[in-house]
Amino acid sequence: MSPLPSVLIFGFGAFGRLIASAVSPHLAVAVSDPDPAAQAQARLLGHAVVGPQQAGRFDVVVLAVPVPALGECLHRLAPHLRAGQVVTDVCSVKQGPAGLMAQILPAGVQILASHPLFGPQSMPAGVAGGRVVLCPVRGTGWRRIAAFLRRVLGLKVIVTTPEEHDRQAALTQGLTHLLARAMAGFQPHPLIRTRSFDLLAEALEMVAADAPEVFDAVTCGNPHVSVIRDRFVQLLAQPALPDAGQGGDIRA
Amino acid sequence: MSPLPSVLIFGFGAFGRLIASAVSPHLAVAVSDPDPAAQAQARLLGHAVVGPQQAGRFDVVVLAVPVPALGECLHRLAPHLRAGQVVTDVCSVKQGPAGLMAQILPAGVQILASHPLFGPQSMPAGVAGGRVVLCPVRGTGWRRIAAFLRRVLGLKVIVTTPEEHDRQAALTQGLTHLLARAMAGFQPHPLIRTRSFDLLAEALEMVAADAPEVFDAVTCGNPHVSVIRDRFVQLLAQPALPDAGQGGDIRA
Repeated sequence: MSPLPSVLIFGFGAFGRLIASAVSPHLAVAVSDPDPAAQAQARLLGHAVVGPQQAGRFDVVVLAVPVPALGECLHRLAPHLRAGQVVTDVCSVKQGPAGLMAQILPAGVQILASHPLFGPQSMPAGVAGGRVVLCPVRGTGWRRIAAFLRRVLGLKVIVTTPEEHDRQAALTQGLTHLLARAMAGFQPHPLIRTRSFDLLAEALEMVAADAPEVFDAVTCGNPHVSVIRDRFVQLLAQPALPDAGQGGDIRA
Repeated sequence: MSPLPSVLIFGFGAFGRLIASAVSPHLAVAVSDPDPAAQAQARLLGHAVVGPQQAGRFDVVVLAVPVPALGECLHRLAPHLRAGQVVTDVCSVKQGPAGLMAQILPAGVQILASHPLFGPQSMPAGVAGGRVVLCPVRGTGWRRIAAFLRRVLGLKVIVTTPEEHDRQAALTQGLTHLLARAMAGFQPHPLIRTRSFDLLAEALEMVAADAPEVFDAVTCGNPHVSVIRDRFVQLLAQPALPDAGQGGDIRA
């Protein structure tokens, strides 16, 4: 092990870059990404760039890839990992990714499923004060990471199971994305609107701007969303309303 | 007519007080309210307090009462009004109240249905910059009022029909209130949540804090909400989602 704990960030998209910028003042950071443009940008920012076959050299490997790419990424890295390393993902759902990691990664490799509840858009000024969910799957190496995230990066750390994460996120992410998609069907918004509608639209547009694979992951990829949606629709159906044919009488 | 145009504010609740404070620097304001506590507060704020039988003395009568109280209030005032006066309401829906005013107020009394798209909560620092919808129903006296609202109070004035108002407000008010009521069924909110969910919850809680009669008025009292809700539910039902029994596989 190098004197400073070392981290390999696999995937140098928007989230990979956010992680690199947050941890590089404190840890030895290297980047792996098959895309030459991403490699060039990583070098420009002063990070070492390595191939997946060197993944065994690092204390921690962070998989900063979207949910649909996770399986392939794990298969690619698995032969190069060694016992004792901690592998963590940053996907928006946790049951599926935690299951995949446990299934594909060799025994001895420690596994920590994680979900940072923030992103480059919501935390433009840095990650301190943000919340991150940690779901320990295999090994105890996650404790040292939790302490680092809490004490050094100033994050609020929530430790739970993948299932409990997805149960809670079914409302806060899954339903929110479904509401955003439904509301997008009413564009352009009418001129006659109140401040509370403006705030609502703003919140939903923030979510609607997410990549389509995020929508798919937090809705179709979370097995608890279906129940939440059914209950929400049921609540939305109350009270009974007069239809337009009945005219504009006051019924209040 | 008095040298300064005179206004009677009928109903000295939160909204009546907001109107009184906005217009009293510019117009002669009097207040009418059957409640002795409201009368005392009006006097404390320096407003003349009069009975409904004196309503004929004023150039403009503003009915600052909730939708369910409007009919009774109109019947009470009608015998005391005179030709040429302008009567305006401030209800959150417009088809019902406009119809009631046209039906109950004597011919010759001018009618302007109005909906200020702000309230004491959303505009704590004053009304300038707020939006108000005007729906002229009878007479041309509304033009002078529109000019006053625009030039003197700094409001943005939207002139339209009661039906068009309710059509637009079915989405921006009616649906928003239905979403707020449905979301209230999921309290307390999970700890695992993102910034966009916090914003969404904040917007909906703003609406959920409205009085129950506001909810009834903007949902049951607006004949266009039913169609909007049906369409929203239809959009919300897409895409098909796996149910919890299928486990946590990745389907993205």
